[in-house]
Amino acid sequence: MDAHKNMKGVTAAAVAEAHAKDLKVQGKHGVNYRHYWVDEQNGTIVCLVEAPNPEAAARVHREAHGLVADEIHEVKEG
Amino acid sequence: MDAHKNMKGVTAAAVAEAHAKDLKVQGKHGVNYRHYWVDEQNGTIVCLVEAPNPEAAARVHREAHGLVADEIHEVKEG
Repeated sequence: MDAHKNMKGVTAAAVAEAHAKDLKVQGKHGVNYRHYWVDEQNGTIVCLVEAPNPEAAARVHREAHGLVADEIHEVKEG
Repeated sequence: MDAHKNMKGVTAAAVAEAHAKDLKVQGKHGVNYRHYWVDEQNGTIVCLVEAPNPEAAARVHREAHGLVADEIHEVKEG
């Protein structure tokens, strides 16, 4: 799970576009961006991603649109 | 979506117990705690919740186990 912060003025539509680019790129990195949540008010985005390691997840964002996350947390899901 | 931070020593098992208490209490508040993610390393928990407003979501946590979140963000899901 990653978090992008202080993205002032971010819109759900812009994130949808960026996410579509992630989906195009992720396969060759063994990564799966499953969901995301956008707080337009505070400019925060959280992505839920399956990846072999945090670096692979970051590589997809970097290659797809350049907007890498501020934090990546390895999480257990419940 | 809420975030609980600085929960040092938190375990996925402990969060599962707390979450079960949320599920028992939430109905009468019109709230649905759908998922959560635990970062045991950093002591962070993120909950995805459907609620009529942030206060209702907080009320469930308070009544169920007293562990209210540090942040609550209204999000759009993608």
